[in-house]
Formats: sequence, structure tokens, C-alpha cells
Amino acid sequence: MTSHPSVANSSTTIRRARREDVAIIVAMLADDPLGSGRERLEDPLPPSYYKAFETLDRDPNIQLMVAEQEGGAVIGCLQLCILPGLSSQGASRALIEDVRVASKLRSQGIGEQLVQWAVAEARAKGCKLVELLTHSTRVDAQRFYVRLGFKASHVGMTVRF
Amino acid sequence: MTSHPSVANSSTTIRRARREDVAIIVAMLADDPLGSGRERLEDPLPPSYYKAFETLDRDPNIQLMVAEQEGGAVIGCLQLCILPGLSSQGASRALIEDVRVASKLRSQGIGEQLVQWAVAEARAKGCKLVELLTHSTRVDAQRFYVRLGFKASHVGMTVRF
Repeated sequence: MTSHPSVANSSTTIRRARREDVAIIVAMLADDPLGSGRERLEDPLPPSYYKAFETLDRDPNIQLMVAEQEGGAVIGCLQLCILPGLSSQGASRALIEDVRVASKLRSQGIGEQLVQWAVAEARAKGCKLVELLTHSTRVDAQRFYVRLGFKASHVGMTVRF
Repeated sequence: MTSHPSVANSSTTIRRARREDVAIIVAMLADDPLGSGRERLEDPLPPSYYKAFETLDRDPNIQLMVAEQEGGAVIGCLQLCILPGLSSQGASRALIEDVRVASKLRSQGIGEQLVQWAVAEARAKGCKLVELLTHSTRVDAQRFYVRLGFKASHVGMTVRF
């Protein structure tokens, strides 16, 4: 037995995020050493978050998903982008972003359930490649993705304005 | 002086790719140790490339760009995706993919001109982050991106089907 069961919690469902989930998603993005300095977790939330939600929600390439417990609590999130492109004989590729699980519920298979949903969805949409960037300091995350079949094949390069 | 001049060749222009550029773009994607096994550079090209071009060309998030020499020769390409998302206060982020320069014209500032176009475009579109994955073996590419202001901050994880 490891601390990351490979069978996800059957009481957790993955569904598309709704506008009323935005605050809890932002709270999860902010509850993180890297994310805390980037978000503004205020009540009410800055309107920029709702504006971004509306933009991504009508974008056919993007699926912002949440993990929901029985009872309705949102405990995880993930954004999947399916991107057309010419390479690999014109296969789309998938990009996974913003994977988060509520801090008190980590290591229970919820992240795995989210990522496995995304990989299956990418495959169903004809992608030949799923990619993501994880910060170099997130060694646990890298082990987690390797366990789910990913390879640390690339360097993720970023520039922030 | 380095082998990568920081002033791009003024006779090279960056423009949106057109359907008639698809074959030369695929040739550049295939002219690469990693890409050669993934592409099918046939005449005529497999229709999947044209289908993918049509999909990405009507996608408002995606700009497939080429570098064109005076005289009309296409000598480089890059795909820029602008992706809405909740993180960073709802700022979009930019993903750069499939940067290629014709092999006989490398180290002349063409890749730099393409990437600088993409970074400027991302900034103009309100992105706070530009990201890309470059294969771990592409050490020259990593140096190139660092020179253009990128940091090797992340691990790029991939799964291929």
C-alpha cells in the first residue's frame, strides 16, 4: 500500500465547473506556496476571476473541471485544454493546467481521479500527447505524474510579466 | 558577438500561416531528430495535416505563424496559443509550441524574431505568463530561451499514446 491509492474514491465525481464554483477554485489555487502570492482571495472576489470564467466556459477547447464529494463539496480542480496543431500528423495535443486538491484531502486519490479523467478525455478527443508543466520544486507532483504514466521528458520554460 | 545575433534579420517578416504553407511547415517539423519519426512527409501530404490546419486556423485562441524571407520563402514557424484560466487573477496564459527554423538558416536570429513576436503578442493580449516545453535533450534550445528571458522553472511532463 502506498499513500496514493490507485483506486479513486468512488464517492467523488468529476464534473464541469460552474460559476458558483469559482470562489472555491480560487481558494484552492491560493492555498499553495507558489499560488498564494498570485491570487487575491477576497470577498467578493475580484471581478477578473468571473470574467475569466465566462471566457473559458464558452471556449470549446477548454474544460475546467472540479472533483465533487458526495454532498456537493468541491475538493479539487483541473483545467484541460485540447489544442489543434500540425505536428504529429495533425493530432491535437492536450495541456493540463491548475491541478489542485484541497489541502486537507490530499493523498486520497482525488488528484489521480482528476488527471486520469483528463488523460482519458484527451485520448477520446484524438490527442496523441498530453503535456503539463510542474514547478521544479514540486518533487511530489513529479512522482505523482510518473506514477500515472507521464515522463519527465521536457524542460518547462516560463516567462512572467 | 555570439552566433545568435539579438537583432533579427530585418528582411524576415512574421505573418499568419496560410493553407499553402502547410507542406513547408510539416517539412520543418519533420527535419528534426525528434520530429522525423512522428511526421509523414509525403506528396501529397496526408489530409490530416490540412484538416488540422483548418481547425486551428478558425480557432480564435491559436495563431500559427511563419517567418517569411524577402522573396516569399517560408523559413520558420511557431504556434502561439492564448488560453484563458482562473489562476493569476484570471489572466490568460500563453503557450508556445512547434518552434522551428529551416535547418540551413539557424543561428541567424529567425527563431528569436518568432519567439519575440509571440512574447509581445502574449503581453498585448494580457497574459501574465508565457510557457513552453522543450525536450530535455535540446540544450541549445534551453540556452536560447534563457537568453530571451525565460527561466527553466518547471519540469515538462508528457504522456504519448
